Order: sequence, then C-alpha cells, then structure tokens
Amino acid sequence: MQICFVSKVSTDQLDAYRQAHANVWPEMLEALRDTGWHGYRLYLGADGLLVGVVEVDSYEQAQTRMAALPVNAKWQSAMAELFESDGNPDEGMVLLDEIFNLDNQLAALGLPTTDQAPGAPDF
Amino acid sequence: MQICFVSKVSTDQLDAYRQAHANVWPEMLEALRDTGWHGYRLYLGADGLLVGVVEVDSYEQAQTRMAALPVNAKWQSAMAELFESDGNPDEGMVLLDEIFNLDNQLAALGLPTTDQAPGAPDF
Repeated sequence: MQICFVSKVSTDQLDAYRQAHANVWPEMLEALRDTGWHGYRLYLGADGLLVGVVEVDSYEQAQTRMAALPVNAKWQSAMAELFESDGNPDEGMVLLDEIFNLDNQLAALGLPTTDQAPGAPDF
Repeated sequence: MQICFVSKVSTDQLDAYRQAHANVWPEMLEALRDTGWHGYRLYLGADGLLVGVVEVDSYEQAQTRMAALPVNAKWQSAMAELFESDGNPDEGMVLLDEIFNLDNQLAALGLPTTDQAPGAPDF
C-alpha cells in the first residue's frame, strides 16, 4: 500500500532541511531500503509543509523496524531541531486518508487501468 | 516523474468531498487515464489538507489535456464549492518540490535499490 503523511518543517529551517535531505547518509538510505520503505519520497512546500509518500507492506512494521536501528536515532536526533513539533520528528508525522485511487476505481468498474492506445494518433 | 501537489478543502465540506471522490464518474476516470495521469491518488487530512500524488510524463501536458475535456469542466464545476480557494479547483493546486527520493539517492551512490535479502532471516 502507498501511504502519505505530513509534517511541518520550521520555516526558518527549510534550507537546512533541504540540504540534509539532498545527501542522506548512505547507512540511512540502506536502512530505509532494508526495513520496507519502498519508493520513499519527500516533498516540501514554501510554507514548511512536508509530505512523505512511501510504499509499504505495513507502515507500522516499517516504522518499528527503523525505530530499532541506531542510525535512525542519530538521524532523527539531527533532524529534530528542524521541525516545528517537539520531540522525535517521526512522531510528528500525521497519516492522511487515501480518498481517491484512480487505478482502484477503474478496476472496480471493470475498466482498463492503462491507456488503451498510448501514443496513438487521435483519429 | 511522480509529482505532488496540495490544496485545501473547506473543513465544512470534507464529507461531501470524500463522498464525491469515493465514486468518481467513470467518464472522468477514463479521461484521467487517457490524458497521462498514472497511479493518481488523493489523500485528505482532518484539517482539509488535500494531497495529490500522480505519475506523469509531463504535468503541464497532463493538465492541458484534461482541461480540454468537457467532462473535466463539469467535474471541476461540481467540486469548486468544496474548496477554500476561489475559482477552478485545479488552479488552487500548489506543486511541492521533491527534496528526497530514496531510490535516486541509492542509485547515485551505486547501491542496490531493492532489499538484497527480502524475507531472509537476520543472521
């Protein structure tokens, strides 16, 4: 399942947050990869809105597995001061509800989920 | 490319917005599919924050192609009153910057992007 969560980066720390995430520690990347975080992406708005999108088998399990790793504790500690909420940045994440999924609704209606004539001329 | 945009649904219209998106018109689903909106998902927060995630070859082209379709005009008109911003809901969408992409950073370091031993015991 693909999940989406949001958080809030302090507006005076946007550059620092961007820089930290432009080159995440290799150990952190491998830890995410190996604890079930697939296709993980973060997006940042000018107002500090942070959106995370990730494919997981189980979000709870992926979080629990990351939380057990020392590299994660180090990373979260380094990031904590960049967030508006107090405490561990991970705990300030708010999961959003999926309210629309194009492929699922097409499939539910028995309609093809992929364009039937990709690249074909319009005639 | 996967893009992410945000908008704001009126907090007194959250139920209406959810209901409308639980069963989007088949013509609208097919229009999205056939104009380059891949894996399109919408997420909604309790405060009305709306997050859209979609895979597109070109967001501008996908938007332009949808904007040309009568079914889209009808849909956007029906949705307009549910949003906080004035005018066409499509135009209230704000694109966020991608600031982290796990697979891209792993690949840039020459590291595998998939778990090397999925399901293997930890020994």
